Amino acid sequence: MTSGTSRRLHLNAFLMSVGHHEAAWRLPQSNPLAHIDVEHYRNLARIAERGKLDSLFLADSPVQMGSPGRRPSGRLEPTLLLTALAAVTDHIGLIATASTSYNEPYNLARRFASLDHISGGRAGWNIVTTAGVEAALNFGLDDLPAHRDRYERAAEFLEVSTKLWDSWADNAIVADKERGVHADADRVQVIDHVGKYFKVRGPLNVPRSPQAYPLLVQAGSSEDGRNFAARWAEAVFTAQQTLEEGKAFYADLKDRVARGGRDPDTVKILPGIVPVIADTEREAHELDAELNRLIIPEYAKRQLAERFRLSPDELDLDSELPENLPTEDEIEGAKSRFTLIVALARRERLTVRQLIGRLGGGRGHRTFAGTPVQVADAIQYWFDNGAADGFNIMPAVLPSGLESFVDKVVPILQERGLFRTEYETTTLRQHYGLARPANQFATGDRGLAAAL
Amino acid sequence: MTSGTSRRLHLNAFLMSVGHHEAAWRLPQSNPLAHIDVEHYRNLARIAERGKLDSLFLADSPVQMGSPGRRPSGRLEPTLLLTALAAVTDHIGLIATASTSYNEPYNLARRFASLDHISGGRAGWNIVTTAGVEAALNFGLDDLPAHRDRYERAAEFLEVSTKLWDSWADNAIVADKERGVHADADRVQVIDHVGKYFKVRGPLNVPRSPQAYPLLVQAGSSEDGRNFAARWAEAVFTAQQTLEEGKAFYADLKDRVARGGRDPDTVKILPGIVPVIADTEREAHELDAELNRLIIPEYAKRQLAERFRLSPDELDLDSELPENLPTEDEIEGAKSRFTLIVALARRERLTVRQLIGRLGGGRGHRTFAGTPVQVADAIQYWFDNGAADGFNIMPAVLPSGLESFVDKVVPILQERGLFRTEYETTTLRQHYGLARPANQFATGDRGLAAAL
Repeated sequence: MTSGTSRRLHLNAFLMSVGHHEAAWRLPQSNPLAHIDVEHYRNLARIAERGKLDSLFLADSPVQMGSPGRRPSGRLEPTLLLTALAAVTDHIGLIATASTSYNEPYNLARRFASLDHISGGRAGWNIVTTAGVEAALNFGLDDLPAHRDRYERAAEFLEVSTKLWDSWADNAIVADKERGVHADADRVQVIDHVGKYFKVRGPLNVPRSPQAYPLLVQAGSSEDGRNFAARWAEAVFTAQQTLEEGKAFYADLKDRVARGGRDPDTVKILPGIVPVIADTEREAHELDAELNRLIIPEYAKRQLAERFRLSPDELDLDSELPENLPTEDEIEGAKSRFTLIVALARRERLTVRQLIGRLGGGRGHRTFAGTPVQVADAIQYWFDNGAADGFNIMPAVLPSGLESFVDKVVPILQERGLFRTEYETTTLRQHYGLARPANQFATGDRGLAAAL
Repeated sequence: MTSGTSRRLHLNAFLMSVGHHEAAWRLPQSNPLAHIDVEHYRNLARIAERGKLDSLFLADSPVQMGSPGRRPSGRLEPTLLLTALAAVTDHIGLIATASTSYNEPYNLARRFASLDHISGGRAGWNIVTTAGVEAALNFGLDDLPAHRDRYERAAEFLEVSTKLWDSWADNAIVADKERGVHADADRVQVIDHVGKYFKVRGPLNVPRSPQAYPLLVQAGSSEDGRNFAARWAEAVFTAQQTLEEGKAFYADLKDRVARGGRDPDTVKILPGIVPVIADTEREAHELDAELNRLIIPEYAKRQLAERFRLSPDELDLDSELPENLPTEDEIEGAKSRFTLIVALARRERLTVRQLIGRLGGGRGHRTFAGTPVQVADAIQYWFDNGAADGFNIMPAVLPSGLESFVDKVVPILQERGLFRTEYETTTLRQHYGLARPANQFATGDRGLAAAL
């Protein structure tokens, strides 16, 4: 970690329908169809770009999550939605979550290359392996593949994808109209990848894009997840409740990156934060409490029980968590989030009802209610103390929470010299201060002309 | 086929980089990066919408086609590119080609549902099974699956997709904020599909879209292709060189539709046409000849040899095709196109060089060079004589060829009462005069609430 006046925060807007709080949709002003309304997202994108944020971020899973009854569920496919948002923005990055377990590398690498071309170099890929058996059932499987297998497949998926993105040299297109030569076939590579999970000949059918690769983002914090991040990630999203936990994760991951031979400064660590912002501290806490009152406890209890692999009857709303919880090893998905939630409940001796309130805003991400200055202070405190290179901003209510953050918190961070006042760069990778990847293939020695 | 004053043409703009003629990129005015330039496509989309055309159409295959040297190759992924074009248009339909052989139904059905939501009901899916072994090699296979297997998989793919699109009832979202009920879980269905190729639990994670299903389009004209079209297609793109061939195909397909129990009027048959338009007939033929002079014969000969499964040495540019060609049964992809090309060459006793010129404009689609009135006459002649319900317009050169068609030919068709003068409907399916599909699931009896 570097420090000093030149070090700048990175801030992403994590967009989720009417907000990250699970009861946000019940507020009078919330649009219950926002999750499928592109105009709602266009408005959010414009607000985030007004705030000069680094990127828009969209979560995803190829499954209908939980029961569709209790809150807005389902979502538009993120690479398409971000393509729509590229059309109404000029600078902000566009990070889509996509699964390595339920896609083919050729198709997905191509979609990200296409998004990068269409957006002029603003694409990012949040690489996930997709926890949960329900998704597996949509793809011909009877059960969730083991955690380790999913990460092994993910690593090979990245190997194939980067080969495909490098299969066109930057100077492959020569466009010599006189001779009738559009591209130099020696600069377009078959990749001939043969591995445990994939066999892909290539080349990609999209020339190398402005960023070469989308920004590579990763969000798993388990042992496998951290090792994957150390090898591949350029930004890591993480859920951390306390400064101490945040510092420990930050130090551990930067250390793994360095031990893997990469510069730790080229991996940005970005915890999630759910800011609940009001002009006074009291109003902020009232807003937080109002949202928590709108949670339906029986529904939230069932979700919590599913996470713990218990029956809902084994949880009592007004008691602490039972002793007989599984260990992280026994959980096949969202391992680190499981451990975080158990630690939070035990540390603060929360009843199930209280725990549900604490999780309602950000599903384990840190909720912080306060004035704009207090939110800015909270962000700076972690940034200055080795727990974060920036934050994934997860407004409890949208669009109002994003508007408050952009209009009230961002100016404070700008005044403190912690955040840009204008976009000074063009691509998402540049916003993050990262280099464009070099092409792994030498030009001319494995070209298509030789292979055909 | 119905006739009379109320019958209207359907016209799609088939967009392909700088034009359908393989040498179009060599013209001085052609942008050699147009195939990866979203602004080029935005311009085309605006021109097509100015002409009140039914839709934009994009071909696709998940493979780098042929050698990348001789003409612009590679293309942006169509569902993303059309999402970008949705942002600059309000009415025109958006038809993306996508393969049933190299996608998973859950992912693809979701992308089309998302495009339909984002575009307000303008999505269409050109369903292809993807000919060519090269694509198979990008997806872990050693060879192209057999033609019949690809169509069998396609049929099951459609079955799964339509179930997923119907998995949310139209009235599933109740948004009762007071009770905290967002959706009626009884109106969201697991589909529990188990078949030869797919096992998919569902439901889709996107609520039912404005059109329910994208417009279903099909382009294969082989025996398997025609049967598939008769069962599923609402629009059929086809390549036909002569009125007699066009009439025979039209009658055969409408008959298959009727025998399958569907109303033949609900399936629109749209041959491709490559119009080369100029103010005088002589100028039009000169433009056509100029383009053909820019073809590099040795390269085109190699492509033709690949199609015929011959070595390039077996073709002589100044002789007719050899006698020893394979039969359609021996061809595993693009069967009907193969037969069309052989028939064209034999009927007109073309040398290989002449055949290459005839194919240069539209790869087997009919090229027609003439004045705006002559092009309008050619279109009307097929429309009035039982060979077409409309056309897929494939300009040899873009954007100029689309501008000529929209500004010079469309007004003639409008004056004749054959084509709309304003968009009168909202969705693509409505532009085609087709109904929104009914939901195949009865409400309430297979809901998620019962399954969970």
